Amino acid sequence: MSGSELGEFALIERIVARLGESAAQNILVPSGDDAAAWAVERGTLVATTDAFVEGTHWRRDTMSFADVGWRVIAANVSDIAAMGATPQQALVALVIPPSISLEDLDEIIDGIAEACLYHELHVAGGDIVRGNEATFTVTVFGSAPQEDERTQLLRRDSAQAGDTVGVSGTPGASAAGLALIESNVHRGMANVLVAAHRRPIARVALGRAAVEAGITCAIDLSDGLMQDLGHIAQRSVTGIEIDLSTLPLAPAAIELMGEQRAIDLALGGGEDFELAFVASAGDLDTISTSTLPVTAIGRVVAEHPGETWAFNAEGKRYEPPSTGWDHLRTQSQS
Amino acid sequence: MSGSELGEFALIERIVARLGESAAQNILVPSGDDAAAWAVERGTLVATTDAFVEGTHWRRDTMSFADVGWRVIAANVSDIAAMGATPQQALVALVIPPSISLEDLDEIIDGIAEACLYHELHVAGGDIVRGNEATFTVTVFGSAPQEDERTQLLRRDSAQAGDTVGVSGTPGASAAGLALIESNVHRGMANVLVAAHRRPIARVALGRAAVEAGITCAIDLSDGLMQDLGHIAQRSVTGIEIDLSTLPLAPAAIELMGEQRAIDLALGGGEDFELAFVASAGDLDTISTSTLPVTAIGRVVAEHPGETWAFNAEGKRYEPPSTGWDHLRTQSQS
Repeated sequence: MSGSELGEFALIERIVARLGESAAQNILVPSGDDAAAWAVERGTLVATTDAFVEGTHWRRDTMSFADVGWRVIAANVSDIAAMGATPQQALVALVIPPSISLEDLDEIIDGIAEACLYHELHVAGGDIVRGNEATFTVTVFGSAPQEDERTQLLRRDSAQAGDTVGVSGTPGASAAGLALIESNVHRGMANVLVAAHRRPIARVALGRAAVEAGITCAIDLSDGLMQDLGHIAQRSVTGIEIDLSTLPLAPAAIELMGEQRAIDLALGGGEDFELAFVASAGDLDTISTSTLPVTAIGRVVAEHPGETWAFNAEGKRYEPPSTGWDHLRTQSQS
Repeated sequence: MSGSELGEFALIERIVARLGESAAQNILVPSGDDAAAWAVERGTLVATTDAFVEGTHWRRDTMSFADVGWRVIAANVSDIAAMGATPQQALVALVIPPSISLEDLDEIIDGIAEACLYHELHVAGGDIVRGNEATFTVTVFGSAPQEDERTQLLRRDSAQAGDTVGVSGTPGASAAGLALIESNVHRGMANVLVAAHRRPIARVALGRAAVEAGITCAIDLSDGLMQDLGHIAQRSVTGIEIDLSTLPLAPAAIELMGEQRAIDLALGGGEDFELAFVASAGDLDTISTSTLPVTAIGRVVAEHPGETWAFNAEGKRYEPPSTGWDHLRTQSQS
């Protein structure tokens, strides 16, 4: 039975049942009303929306429908994490083409439910409509506590010359995973990279820890280090310099693809959903843990404001072949 | 210059500039950060998301891009109004195919800005991505005040036998406007119907007035009276009976299309964004005004729970040719 034969409201009931624990329990009206409603405390609401389009953001030959469901939640949660806030509720708008069966839709919902469980948020509502192109648009709401009448958020415009640049995890792992899937090499040690691409994890606890440590500047890595740090440089009107010899690359990426390729993927590959911080070296040490290290990779400078420069081990400036993913272009800029 | 030549971030700056007063001023971080953030008081947050897909929800030959922008905001605001809440912020996710030029996008933004100004909400953030099918997904956040530790919301599941069913404005006007545009008859007295289709108005003040009058049950007319009242009947497990001789039809629709067609469009035509209430006759009188009358059109009964029946002037049951719009089907159900 296809989604269109089932009808809109029967389909919504099926989705809510399948979401299980991930369906919001604490909402004030049951699903199927005009809008979702929930109680909020006085504080700061943080909200983000991202559209994931088949062909532009994901492909059926590189990830399962469940992976796509996971990813669209993780990507939105990552934006909340990058503000230092805690995700709470999601609204999910699905455009379903005839090529997506009811079973495919079940898989998408399973992935959404798993990602919500993992990241501790709930689906409070949504919309499901017919179209020709599969497009999943998720909106995630989070909250940030208010202390002393002001809310501490992680911003892009608060970097200052003299600060250290740090990054969590191993940037480039997701892009390496995608490259390995495309080359049909995804066994053995490639697994960790493939998982980084298909089941990325948003760094919510790390974002919160950064706020608690007094850090004020962060961004999530969705478009590659060069472009994402570039946003901080532009918004803060500072320069950023990265020391490539300090990049925390995934050992599997170096082993399978070589160090230079691994560096290029960290600089220009998207959707790691790690967090990059600008702070004092001491504050970066404070939030670094053995399970999720935060590694110093560069510094903020007064020179070349708005620009991020990378330097290799010999101290020579390095221009990567790709400076990151622009969702409106057909391919990465060179 | 096309949107893809301009690049994602330059495009966002262009959009924010074009939004003007409709861009959120009271947000805590400037646009271009990872997420939008704004202060909220203790109370109830009401949120809704709707995807508008070209071909499914709108067509370039029946409305301008500015109309589409207006409509996607109005449709979402209407869901907030139908809860008795006040809209505050919107997030706008745009999937832009190559066939939409930068000038077209400007027009879409103009329509969004006009609808936000009219309905008193602001665009706090969004996403813009490339795709093959134009899809605009808007999320609107509103708030409802909390009194005595409980929030009064307009729900679908609170109708009771003996209540009166009332509706605002002239349902069917939007569908009549669409039919007239398709027949290329949209001059003179058709104007009011065409405007109802292209520039629908969400009934925010009326929803608030209903809450203040103690009304607890409402829905907005997005799929036609039969289907929308059917949702109340199903959720409340009651029957609903409509007296067709009392339907407040648009005089222009009767004049141009005949009374029977006007009735059928009210019962089965979508996207009027009027509000239907279930309440006492006295409470309906309280919220009715000369500029926006609320007309009693039927009653809630204990019989045929979950079903909405229509009766003509002779007291005979009438089955309309279409029972409303299902966004997942290729055409209305019969």
